[in-house]
Amino acid sequence: VNASLVELRNLVAEIWDLNSARGLLSWDEETHMPRGGAEARAEQKATLERLAHERLRSDELARLLDALAPLERELDPDSDDASLIRVVRRDHEKARRVPTELQAELVRNGSIGYERWLQARAQNDFRVLLPHLHRSLELRRRYIDCFEAAADPYDVLVDDYEPGWTTADIDPILSRLKEALVPMVAALPDSGGAADALRGSFAVDAQQAFSLWLLERCGFDREAWSLTGTVHPFEVSISPTDIRLTTRFDEDGLGGVFACLHEFGHGLYERQVSPSLVRTPLATGASAAIHESQSRLWENLVGRGLPFWRFAYPQLQAHLPELRDVTLERFHRAINAMRPSLIRVEADELTYSLHIVLRYELEREVVSGTLALEDLEDAFAAKMRAYLGIDPPDAVHGVLQDMHWADLGFGYFASYAIGNVISLQLWEQLCSELGDLEAQFGRGEFGALREWLGARVHRYGRKYSAAEMTERAVGGPLDPEPYLAYLSRKVNELSAAA
Amino acid sequence: VNASLVELRNLVAEIWDLNSARGLLSWDEETHMPRGGAEARAEQKATLERLAHERLRSDELARLLDALAPLERELDPDSDDASLIRVVRRDHEKARRVPTELQAELVRNGSIGYERWLQARAQNDFRVLLPHLHRSLELRRRYIDCFEAAADPYDVLVDDYEPGWTTADIDPILSRLKEALVPMVAALPDSGGAADALRGSFAVDAQQAFSLWLLERCGFDREAWSLTGTVHPFEVSISPTDIRLTTRFDEDGLGGVFACLHEFGHGLYERQVSPSLVRTPLATGASAAIHESQSRLWENLVGRGLPFWRFAYPQLQAHLPELRDVTLERFHRAINAMRPSLIRVEADELTYSLHIVLRYELEREVVSGTLALEDLEDAFAAKMRAYLGIDPPDAVHGVLQDMHWADLGFGYFASYAIGNVISLQLWEQLCSELGDLEAQFGRGEFGALREWLGARVHRYGRKYSAAEMTERAVGGPLDPEPYLAYLSRKVNELSAAA
Repeated sequence: VNASLVELRNLVAEIWDLNSARGLLSWDEETHMPRGGAEARAEQKATLERLAHERLRSDELARLLDALAPLERELDPDSDDASLIRVVRRDHEKARRVPTELQAELVRNGSIGYERWLQARAQNDFRVLLPHLHRSLELRRRYIDCFEAAADPYDVLVDDYEPGWTTADIDPILSRLKEALVPMVAALPDSGGAADALRGSFAVDAQQAFSLWLLERCGFDREAWSLTGTVHPFEVSISPTDIRLTTRFDEDGLGGVFACLHEFGHGLYERQVSPSLVRTPLATGASAAIHESQSRLWENLVGRGLPFWRFAYPQLQAHLPELRDVTLERFHRAINAMRPSLIRVEADELTYSLHIVLRYELEREVVSGTLALEDLEDAFAAKMRAYLGIDPPDAVHGVLQDMHWADLGFGYFASYAIGNVISLQLWEQLCSELGDLEAQFGRGEFGALREWLGARVHRYGRKYSAAEMTERAVGGPLDPEPYLAYLSRKVNELSAAA
Repeated sequence: VNASLVELRNLVAEIWDLNSARGLLSWDEETHMPRGGAEARAEQKATLERLAHERLRSDELARLLDALAPLERELDPDSDDASLIRVVRRDHEKARRVPTELQAELVRNGSIGYERWLQARAQNDFRVLLPHLHRSLELRRRYIDCFEAAADPYDVLVDDYEPGWTTADIDPILSRLKEALVPMVAALPDSGGAADALRGSFAVDAQQAFSLWLLERCGFDREAWSLTGTVHPFEVSISPTDIRLTTRFDEDGLGGVFACLHEFGHGLYERQVSPSLVRTPLATGASAAIHESQSRLWENLVGRGLPFWRFAYPQLQAHLPELRDVTLERFHRAINAMRPSLIRVEADELTYSLHIVLRYELEREVVSGTLALEDLEDAFAAKMRAYLGIDPPDAVHGVLQDMHWADLGFGYFASYAIGNVISLQLWEQLCSELGDLEAQFGRGEFGALREWLGARVHRYGRKYSAAEMTERAVGGPLDPEPYLAYLSRKVNELSAAA
């Protein structure tokens, strides 16, 4: 065994421990922490980030990577060891450019931002958040300045979420989605009150019990997963056998159930990473977009399909008496009803990507300096009108709805739309290989799907870039057309059924 | 401002962040973590411990402490700064003796022990835990060997929980308790089924709702506190404004309610530490015994008194219909019923300290080598018979009942008994100064009590040793007689009332 490799593995394990501990601190911050803990939590997270970052940019790591260069050239590039050296080198080179104090300050600022965001929401006033956003923008600009002048400063942010892709790679995809979807949304027929089947008051306890049952059928088990309430649903893996899903159940809808399926998609990715990658930086997903392709696949391609509910709907009816008289077909139309709405996380599949496009465009304008933060709320509303034809009545239903902007965590939103695109490319590939999955879903069987995803995507963890992972799984580059064709078919089918 | 002092404060703040993050990891481990997370959790905690310990024993800290020695001599010893230098020096000198790898291994071993203990309990088999105990004893011995030969190797463990006290200080107290209590327990009159008033099935949800109401009246507020379920109740403070109480509600009794009051006593101590001590090692309690004096004071001296329930009982009855026909007086006798029982945490006040004495004696025998771990289960049962006249029917109701021994976390148990003793010394002092508190309790008013405890004990945090803190608060050394007199009075009163 190569001694430098052993040293490298020990060093990255220590970094992994620090990062996964910080992951738990974040999970707790958004689930159980009394608000009085916020200030100390920001310090705790900043300290863990600082210690991890010091190690990642250390001369010791540089020396190890130099010593391992010959070994890396000898090894199969797909092997765990070669991948580890390659990915750690990339992380190291990025970390070298960023002062540790700035990195820690960004994390501290993120914790503070979450508190300010909660306060601004409680007061339904964007101005409460504004001073913090100015500070955040200053930090974000300092971060961007750490990297050599790229074609676009936004590239630096894209690279953090989609290693290897630049704005030039994703911009055409988002433009194409916008070009195709704006007219489709404008031409949407009146949904004829399809969503009315889901008007009612659905007991939170019953939704939770049903969701746990459903998740367990999908592959959640209590030995390695948990489900907790929060304000803004998310998933975090503390280790591949400690997967935390969070959701938010409301009495007035079933959004929390679909959030469970969404977060389950993320969780399954982390759960099925190869055990040989544990305690290395490879033990997570390839990119944010690949991750979102998994969550959107479970939420929408599986979870809004008729076969899926053929199996699950009787149980849902047993939990929610309000649905006793709603037929499966009517329920299915209701969960797929399409009409412009205010809240991104509750948007239907057709309008969803436009929520993303508008955020992506606003982020780029803020970063380039053509849009002032003071004007962000109005600009948000203007794009809502332009793309979706509706007007946010207040900040909570507009610019304050997502926590991502609480600290200007820019760069992530685009990954949701790219993830939608990839989810269809994967779906077509897996359906062509596995044949008719719908019969299996109708019986509540998801093993074949899980295995295909595990074998073709999950097990590789973070070995490959987003572009490489997409190419490997579907045999080609990013392509929005399958996703757009799927949406067209869906609009037509639902119009015909209405 | 002294530059070395600024450096010291930065360094201890970093250590504090690491330790408080580790506190959250432990809290999560015993509340929300899926069991699959155990292995990674042990590594995460060991890494945080290692990094904190490296800093605590560092040459950098040694240099700072040397540089600060002249300042320390100039300052008022009671000042925050002088206390910080003094306590950090003590922690530093202890840490210098212990190799960091051993310290981290003790923490890792603690996490593993908790899992093994859960497994052994599930199988109700002490032998499941035994291999882990052998490993733990080896580590514990290596730890003891790091310190110069003390009068008794057990001194090393006592000093970790009761800084400044040795076995010679606490042994006479425990001997006196044993000498007085064994005959009192043997002579206990039949309680005449007083506890039967609490036979029944009490809905867990209702107990929880009542407990939250009760805690809020005592001083718990949701901005700075939380309450969560666990296997073995405990309290941990993540910061002075992030206090975590845990409890275990069972349908067949109200033990969970009293556990809430117990943990509240711990939490209030941490909550009322002076804000000027935040992010320093002074921002916690003086010792385990002082801490237990607070928990036992709230659980027993406040929480088992008739005046307290005059205020709280109508609410309890409103939550638990089973108690509608139980009079306040009968309820009060029931929660104070005295009879030997198997489980320490459910023991009445009279028998409680004997549960402690037997554990303390067994720990000393194991440490000195006169008792083999293989014989621990039988020795435990033999002492239960000798001191309490009852026989554990199985391991779960005997040697496996406490998590403290899952990794031979020896040295702590004695602090519970010492805490009982201190609680009465404090109680007599505060009653003599505050006069009749009972009328206030009867109205659900606890402000005067909280303030006295805050001003006389809590605000000092860890500035003083257990001996100094006791002396300052009650004007004298440890004295078991007030506690024994209190128990005698209580036995007599309850016998008379029966």
